[in-house]
Amino acid sequence: MKRYQGYISDLDGTLYRGEEVIPGAPEAIAELRRRGCGVVFISNKPLERRRAYAEKLTRLGIPTVSDEVINSSLVLARYLANSEHGMAGATVFAIGEPPLLEELATAGLRLSDVPEEIEVVIASFDRTFDYHKLNIGFQALRRGARFLATNADPTCPVEGGEIPDAGAVIGALEGCSGRKVELVVGKPSPLIMEMALERLGLPAEACLMVGDRLETDIVMGHRAGMSTALVLSGVTRREDLSRSSIRPDYVLESIADLPRLIS
Amino acid sequence: MKRYQGYISDLDGTLYRGEEVIPGAPEAIAELRRRGCGVVFISNKPLERRRAYAEKLTRLGIPTVSDEVINSSLVLARYLANSEHGMAGATVFAIGEPPLLEELATAGLRLSDVPEEIEVVIASFDRTFDYHKLNIGFQALRRGARFLATNADPTCPVEGGEIPDAGAVIGALEGCSGRKVELVVGKPSPLIMEMALERLGLPAEACLMVGDRLETDIVMGHRAGMSTALVLSGVTRREDLSRSSIRPDYVLESIADLPRLIS
Repeated sequence: MKRYQGYISDLDGTLYRGEEVIPGAPEAIAELRRRGCGVVFISNKPLERRRAYAEKLTRLGIPTVSDEVINSSLVLARYLANSEHGMAGATVFAIGEPPLLEELATAGLRLSDVPEEIEVVIASFDRTFDYHKLNIGFQALRRGARFLATNADPTCPVEGGEIPDAGAVIGALEGCSGRKVELVVGKPSPLIMEMALERLGLPAEACLMVGDRLETDIVMGHRAGMSTALVLSGVTRREDLSRSSIRPDYVLESIADLPRLIS
Repeated sequence: MKRYQGYISDLDGTLYRGEEVIPGAPEAIAELRRRGCGVVFISNKPLERRRAYAEKLTRLGIPTVSDEVINSSLVLARYLANSEHGMAGATVFAIGEPPLLEELATAGLRLSDVPEEIEVVIASFDRTFDYHKLNIGFQALRRGARFLATNADPTCPVEGGEIPDAGAVIGALEGCSGRKVELVVGKPSPLIMEMALERLGLPAEACLMVGDRLETDIVMGHRAGMSTALVLSGVTRREDLSRSSIRPDYVLESIADLPRLIS
């Protein structure tokens, strides 16, 4: 394996599973940093504040600051705040949890639940989703509001199984409004990668994307023009890989193998 | 127009709009009955008890008993209770409102919100839909429960606009489970027509379907082998008709014109 200047790592399934760190992951990240490589962490999950992810990584032995974590809430907030996309300062209604709402407010967007003034409807992962929120989103979409989503994951893995993720909220809004979501900023959209590369200050070809999901992490790395490494410490098994047409550049048992491969 | 022995009439948009009866509708229904014709009323709406529809029609000048009203809740409950379909006495979880739950219980189905024991998940119109219900339905579908729906309307007309209907609940469950709804019993499914014909005790060719929606009422009548009459007192306008490939046998300004045409 060539030595990359920057590494973009997925979180769940790549660095930890639930509250358990992947053995060797802290040493691997420490070694990359010791060699002067840039490292950023990405997640599709809009449920936690970036600070909470940084604290969790730090607690698990991977010292991290908030700015090193990029999740779909942040990417969406930055996308909306970017004046090039015509929605800077827009009035937004988000079906999502408080960390997303905070990220949007911080980016200068105005939050509202009045359909007549909502210019953008955002579908996200929301464990407090209900008919009232559905109806507000629906009324705004019917009036022509833009329709964006943080992520499109059907489910989110949790202790003992999975629970409905943003895919359910998108499905509910599409099922009543006759509209289709216009943009999903999370993986496998290139937007989350663009922000990671910007943070690293490196071109795609100088970076390696490391993750445990073929359809999101690996596809997205390829699309961004990056090399990719699949780790088998998460949801993908070697037999899944042999059945898939998606081909990562490298396949590792876990991220712990990374420093050895590049030395 | 030939004289039919039975008439199947839609409710909203055909006999009334909200709380306003369509002028001449009571006289038209009375005249059909005076001539000895059978009349039943059908609705996709699972929100009200059949008794409530009968009381509303009676209040509006069309004396009606519960048995003359067939709605999607009743059709689904009867479908499940029919031993031919292999779900009689099944344990069911319904995302729906109390009138649906009552109809299911009356048909001998056991209601449960424990995913491990749920054999059938039902998506319906539910203004109390929330993430908790979504998750129960999802967990049961993941374990292999059957997936049925009362109706698939994206929206329901209400005073001043529309609100999300069962289409949103179906979309939410499909969006997270990766499953597709197996059966929708409401219009334009032939099941609701079969039950109406059974109630009338007449073959399809002896009956006229009267309704205000091309894609549901008229399509469903055609599929059932019945003659159809579109009324322009509801959502469909003459210009919609000219743009559509769906061709009703008759087009009436309103159901008030019916007795005159068949005399």
